[in-house]
Amino acid sequence: MPVVFAEDSVGLVTPQTAHFNEPLALACGRSLAPWQLVYETYGTLNPARSNAILICHALSGHHHAAGFHREDERKPGWWDSCIGPGKPIDTRRFFVVSLNNLGGCNGSTGPASINPASGKAYGADFPVMTVEDWVKSQALLADRLGISQWAAVIGGSLGGMQALQWSISYPERIRHCVAIAAAPRLSAQNIAFNEVARQAILTDPDFFGGHFKEQGVVPKRGLMLARMVGHITYLSDDAMGEKFGRGLKSEKLNYDFHSVEFQVESYLRYQGEEFSGRFDANTYLLMTKALDYFDPAATHNGDLAKTLAVAKAHFCLMSFTTDWRFPPARSREIVDALLRAGKNVSYLEIDAQQGHDAFLLPIPRYLQALDSYLQGIAP
Amino acid sequence: MPVVFAEDSVGLVTPQTAHFNEPLALACGRSLAPWQLVYETYGTLNPARSNAILICHALSGHHHAAGFHREDERKPGWWDSCIGPGKPIDTRRFFVVSLNNLGGCNGSTGPASINPASGKAYGADFPVMTVEDWVKSQALLADRLGISQWAAVIGGSLGGMQALQWSISYPERIRHCVAIAAAPRLSAQNIAFNEVARQAILTDPDFFGGHFKEQGVVPKRGLMLARMVGHITYLSDDAMGEKFGRGLKSEKLNYDFHSVEFQVESYLRYQGEEFSGRFDANTYLLMTKALDYFDPAATHNGDLAKTLAVAKAHFCLMSFTTDWRFPPARSREIVDALLRAGKNVSYLEIDAQQGHDAFLLPIPRYLQALDSYLQGIAP
Repeated sequence: MPVVFAEDSVGLVTPQTAHFNEPLALACGRSLAPWQLVYETYGTLNPARSNAILICHALSGHHHAAGFHREDERKPGWWDSCIGPGKPIDTRRFFVVSLNNLGGCNGSTGPASINPASGKAYGADFPVMTVEDWVKSQALLADRLGISQWAAVIGGSLGGMQALQWSISYPERIRHCVAIAAAPRLSAQNIAFNEVARQAILTDPDFFGGHFKEQGVVPKRGLMLARMVGHITYLSDDAMGEKFGRGLKSEKLNYDFHSVEFQVESYLRYQGEEFSGRFDANTYLLMTKALDYFDPAATHNGDLAKTLAVAKAHFCLMSFTTDWRFPPARSREIVDALLRAGKNVSYLEIDAQQGHDAFLLPIPRYLQALDSYLQGIAP
Repeated sequence: MPVVFAEDSVGLVTPQTAHFNEPLALACGRSLAPWQLVYETYGTLNPARSNAILICHALSGHHHAAGFHREDERKPGWWDSCIGPGKPIDTRRFFVVSLNNLGGCNGSTGPASINPASGKAYGADFPVMTVEDWVKSQALLADRLGISQWAAVIGGSLGGMQALQWSISYPERIRHCVAIAAAPRLSAQNIAFNEVARQAILTDPDFFGGHFKEQGVVPKRGLMLARMVGHITYLSDDAMGEKFGRGLKSEKLNYDFHSVEFQVESYLRYQGEEFSGRFDANTYLLMTKALDYFDPAATHNGDLAKTLAVAKAHFCLMSFTTDWRFPPARSREIVDALLRAGKNVSYLEIDAQQGHDAFLLPIPRYLQALDSYLQGIAP
């Protein structure tokens, strides 16, 4: 009996791969060749090739943003609440492209890929990537797909930074920039949390300087700790309180170090364990570095408005009240710079209890706002 | 040439040790014997024995709160800004007692002490301690010193929790309770950060189930990570921003994982390294557990006012505006419960940029407030 997908689902999707032999020159001074990007598309490119939307993913995201890879897949893509027929990113109107970034661990060229120079996995020898590098690779993918201009580039968190970079790197190729729960650059505290995560991985004896694959091991402890720290920063204090409070796992306290006393401990351990079994440690390092390095204002002595002067896109910024990783104030910095630069910008601060994670969740007011903005875009 | 100490310094101090052979029954159901407490005293006990103040330390603190152990000691005790002749905790008027808690690693019986049952260091076999256990041991120290009632018990953070517990466990033995930057119990987020620190230590291969001493190693990586995470939560985002911003270590970015790019990274690594060389991993686990378990309202179905009904002390609560570990709202919970219980309470929220760390720093308004409250205490 064939599975029937919901009417507003994009249904079954098949990832595709784009290969590139031309070397990609990177910000770090090195270049990458050959390289490939894994991506998915939803909806249909119109004859004018004007209705394409690019989805950029965040730290641990990938190309599988909507629909299902198999009929028996338990969970749909990571942004399925937003992408589909009749959903805010409406696949009846738009042709949606979602890719796995370079350096990732879901099929695009990354640290686990074979380094042609050595015949072994790159491991820690994979070049450090920046947001600019990713946007450059995405532009080459757009060329390959025959898309000279995106109707919109959309992303949350690190994905929002890529959307912003698109408006600076390729002002002619993006009509709308939608940056959700983003920041113009990391704060010292943001960098500090990333540094803890990196040190957890780098000091794991199973990391082997990034060449753990050759040793047949995985730095699970480091990845687990990195994810645990990350998770705390994704949730608001309130959201954690509401979800777990001081709920105990059992009636009685154990008074030892190994037992799980509180539900929040068991949640974090589970999240960390699960992540360490599926994510690449070198990719995690690389993603945190891309976050740290992102600082578009740096090219204009810290003046973001001057950097954004070249932009031609219309901008839509959104933030969430309880997000303490990239709080509303960080989005307002971007909005202020855009206004100073005389750009067209909409900004919405959404009342949500879920913290930074809110950008991934089906919060009605958020979906309505996104829907309303995208309704106003001519495909 | 003899060193001359500042006029408001307690000068040279010598730690003392109190030995106890009587077993101490603990909340976990086990008991400890023999045990000892290392402590220091500053000032002189008056003939009425009524001018004694107890200082309780926080997570990584110890008995050395003021003065110098040697003439060439570089830094004085951890709360030297508050304790001394003419300082807020004025040693011309008060006899100040400061101890290292049980389970500590600065001389009091703890995980690194010899377990008489095995002839080896306790390691992870040292019993888990609670705030109630500490207060009980402190009461036995008070007996030993002939102090039947403290003029005040004072502490910040975990130390403030001990001060609060004193007012509940021994209502007749404490006239004033001064709890600074404290909380009535940890939030889920607080517990989550502690859990990350514990997992960092527990999963360090050099931890050896807590018996690293017998192996001649120290779980330095775990301790380092635990301290790094802790440090982020001690500082406000603003304080970190002001201290480090996005300051780079060198002019050029290195684009690798090992180099220190930003000053905040180097600060955290240094703090972590330094701490891992001097602190005991089992003590760290134990201190975080004592924090997690602290929940005085639990004895009265979550009603803190009911638990505090027995208290006879006057209370002074203080908090700092940018403290996000134990924010002002957590102190206000205690204040509200005290008011509902009809107790005498003063509360001051101090405008300070330093986050949780503020309670250790010589912030003028803070020192003035403490001074003013203690001036009002009859010795």
